[in-house]
Amino acid sequence: MTAATLADHLEAARPRLLEELAAFTAFPSVSALDEHAHDIQACAAWVAERLRAAGLDNVGLHEAGGNPVAYGEWLGAGPTAPTVLVYGHYDVQPPDPVELWTSPPFQATIRDGRIYARGVSDNKAQIFLAIAAIEATLGVDGRLPVNVKVIVDGEEELRADHLDALIERERDLLAADLLLNTDSTFLAPGVPSVPVGVRGMVALELTVETGSSDLHSGLFGGVAPNALHVLTALLATLRAPDGTVLVDGFADDVATVPDAERAAWAQLPLDAEAIREQAGTFALMDDGQHSPIERQWARPTLDLNGIWGGFQGQGVKTVIPARAHAKLSCRLVPDQRMEDVLAKLVAHLEAHTPPDARLTIDSTLAGAPPMLTSTDHPAVQAALGALTEAWERPALLTRLGVSVPINEIAARVLGIPAVMLGFAAPTDAFHAPDEHFALDSFDRGLRAFVAFLPRLAAAWEGPAA
Amino acid sequence: MTAATLADHLEAARPRLLEELAAFTAFPSVSALDEHAHDIQACAAWVAERLRAAGLDNVGLHEAGGNPVAYGEWLGAGPTAPTVLVYGHYDVQPPDPVELWTSPPFQATIRDGRIYARGVSDNKAQIFLAIAAIEATLGVDGRLPVNVKVIVDGEEELRADHLDALIERERDLLAADLLLNTDSTFLAPGVPSVPVGVRGMVALELTVETGSSDLHSGLFGGVAPNALHVLTALLATLRAPDGTVLVDGFADDVATVPDAERAAWAQLPLDAEAIREQAGTFALMDDGQHSPIERQWARPTLDLNGIWGGFQGQGVKTVIPARAHAKLSCRLVPDQRMEDVLAKLVAHLEAHTPPDARLTIDSTLAGAPPMLTSTDHPAVQAALGALTEAWERPALLTRLGVSVPINEIAARVLGIPAVMLGFAAPTDAFHAPDEHFALDSFDRGLRAFVAFLPRLAAAWEGPAA
Repeated sequence: MTAATLADHLEAARPRLLEELAAFTAFPSVSALDEHAHDIQACAAWVAERLRAAGLDNVGLHEAGGNPVAYGEWLGAGPTAPTVLVYGHYDVQPPDPVELWTSPPFQATIRDGRIYARGVSDNKAQIFLAIAAIEATLGVDGRLPVNVKVIVDGEEELRADHLDALIERERDLLAADLLLNTDSTFLAPGVPSVPVGVRGMVALELTVETGSSDLHSGLFGGVAPNALHVLTALLATLRAPDGTVLVDGFADDVATVPDAERAAWAQLPLDAEAIREQAGTFALMDDGQHSPIERQWARPTLDLNGIWGGFQGQGVKTVIPARAHAKLSCRLVPDQRMEDVLAKLVAHLEAHTPPDARLTIDSTLAGAPPMLTSTDHPAVQAALGALTEAWERPALLTRLGVSVPINEIAARVLGIPAVMLGFAAPTDAFHAPDEHFALDSFDRGLRAFVAFLPRLAAAWEGPAA
Repeated sequence: MTAATLADHLEAARPRLLEELAAFTAFPSVSALDEHAHDIQACAAWVAERLRAAGLDNVGLHEAGGNPVAYGEWLGAGPTAPTVLVYGHYDVQPPDPVELWTSPPFQATIRDGRIYARGVSDNKAQIFLAIAAIEATLGVDGRLPVNVKVIVDGEEELRADHLDALIERERDLLAADLLLNTDSTFLAPGVPSVPVGVRGMVALELTVETGSSDLHSGLFGGVAPNALHVLTALLATLRAPDGTVLVDGFADDVATVPDAERAAWAQLPLDAEAIREQAGTFALMDDGQHSPIERQWARPTLDLNGIWGGFQGQGVKTVIPARAHAKLSCRLVPDQRMEDVLAKLVAHLEAHTPPDARLTIDSTLAGAPPMLTSTDHPAVQAALGALTEAWERPALLTRLGVSVPINEIAARVLGIPAVMLGFAAPTDAFHAPDEHFALDSFDRGLRAFVAFLPRLAAAWEGPAA
């Protein structure tokens, strides 16, 4: 194969690929809504057929109690080449509010250099480009430089446990050297980047009680404890105004950011004012010790997510509430452990609950460990190189502040690291009206994925001497 | 008239009076529910007819945009005798949850020495006994020792402004020397008492905002301010765990409890443990400076009544809320002024709102000044004497911790003090299933009201030398 041949092939295939992406996004494969169960099945079948057409083997639909997961593989690169488990998902968010869409959400429309459709950016275009790149390479070269296994999930937007169960069950089928997760974003539109870490999470719900029932503030005001006062005083002990978490030992295990990443972050075209504008807040918190980027990616957090108690209606009800509730969650970073952070949090809450109140904590809600892949990993270097080549500007090392369940499942069940290779922009309106994906990202992303495969094969053998 | 004659008259009238109270409580005169508009009208007509039958003059139904207010008067005692404006209400709370009633709420049922019916204690039996006492005195003596004007409200449970407007309009008709409010309670069942003070109230709702919209805690956790943290930190500055309000100058104008009341309170058969049991709380707050009774009646309070913001559903939503809300109210005592307390509260909230948040306050929700009638007032002394006579044990001087709108309206519009003379017990389950009124209170209450009228006439002329 020559680069010129492959480039010609991609150029010739472009109109067909855009039509296929339009067909893929025409399925209203909304996993959250039962009324779309048929669309989910039809979309999964389309994906399986597309994997087969790309030249993959052993194609099929697998399920473990949930929506079908499409699978296909090409294992002809031999046992010394790495095996890449490519992940994407075909399910999408509901299109509501539909009336805010400029064009119909399930009718892909190109305007202003963008493809508009529900799910195009999250994640249909991205997994589609991976499949198209595999197809092009197989078509031109008759082989791939690495082994690939592709899984296309149907419940990413649901956060259900079915994929976890399926991977547990099919761990032999899915055995690989690394997870390549296409469900990722650049730092900004047109700014290629490779996130090597994601934050973890723990969450809990707490209830404080001060008595058996709500009381009249005229009768008992002045003597009866008030659950809302107990709750607000308790929650106020958790965090300083600058965002620093005040739980004893909370940040003890936070690892220093590796020099390579710290140096890379110093070059990022993102200052505090740009981040504040993205957030739409009146100000940014500043702990005086860590840059905004470091606080978003490499520092642990605690955020109250909800609070409620007493009277929320119109007017006045002079009640002394006996019960009050809050939900909170923490983002974790290497090397924090979920159990340890939860234990410290629970100990803090218990120690700060006054004797006239009772505290109940539910900490079984959700959890994910933080994940970090070394910047030296061959797949990270291959991804950086492929993006730099395709975008004609240096790709950047980043992290994501969110948690990514599939990365954690791959590490826990399959024992493999994750590398994120996706071409969406944070401004692509995932989960919102007028979701879109840039045509430029379509073209460059396809070239980047094509370039990634030989770069990974080469890097796997060790850096050139 | 002799006491014996009047006692005979009351004895003979008892069966008829109990039947009439049953008829009065059979009206489902629920002011909060439109479906009972017809019952309200029918009940008001019944009350007017009952006033006429009692021998009152100038009987009629008056209204100022709301439910009818029944009125009647007897002004034959002459210009040197005091004129008493007797207040009660014929409207009742909704009976829900009806399934928790032992007998039907609008079918008066006598068992275990109690009359069970919705509204019997709050306030139908009490105003009925006042009317029956007037009727008995007029029937036996042909005259009353004082002038009386009786108003029976139809919207006490609504807290609407119609009665205020009506009294403004009819201030000449309603001119009097004092308000006698029958909507009152004893300290405990069988423990007669006269409340001479009620607390005032101010209330407000506040909203804090940190930005234009909710954010994802994965993306912006660590840099974006969180409205829930701002709110809980702000609210935690308002009150110490012992209930002391931490707003600068909040209690500056609190008057010392008069010696006569302090001495009376020291005799009250209520200790902290009894109050805690009534409240059903795990503990009572204790500021180490004021007795529980003083904190319930003569100290100002601040209570959060409601709080809400962010996600309140099941499971986890990792949101950073941009808005959070709370409602709070303060009970005021003499000589605090509503405007002054509100201004101090607003200043405190504004001073403690951090620069990365915006605060909005609505303080137009409700308000009432504290009220206190001197224990030397002739009507207070007459009420104490009448209760002591009827219950055959010394009646006690108390206050109420609640606010009583009619007392405040009478002071503001008519310029007259209020005295509370009611026979309900705090355990009578007002506003709850199985509301009841003791038969013993029916009998003794009637005798007490009969005794009150000549005692007031005598006390008005000055204490015996």
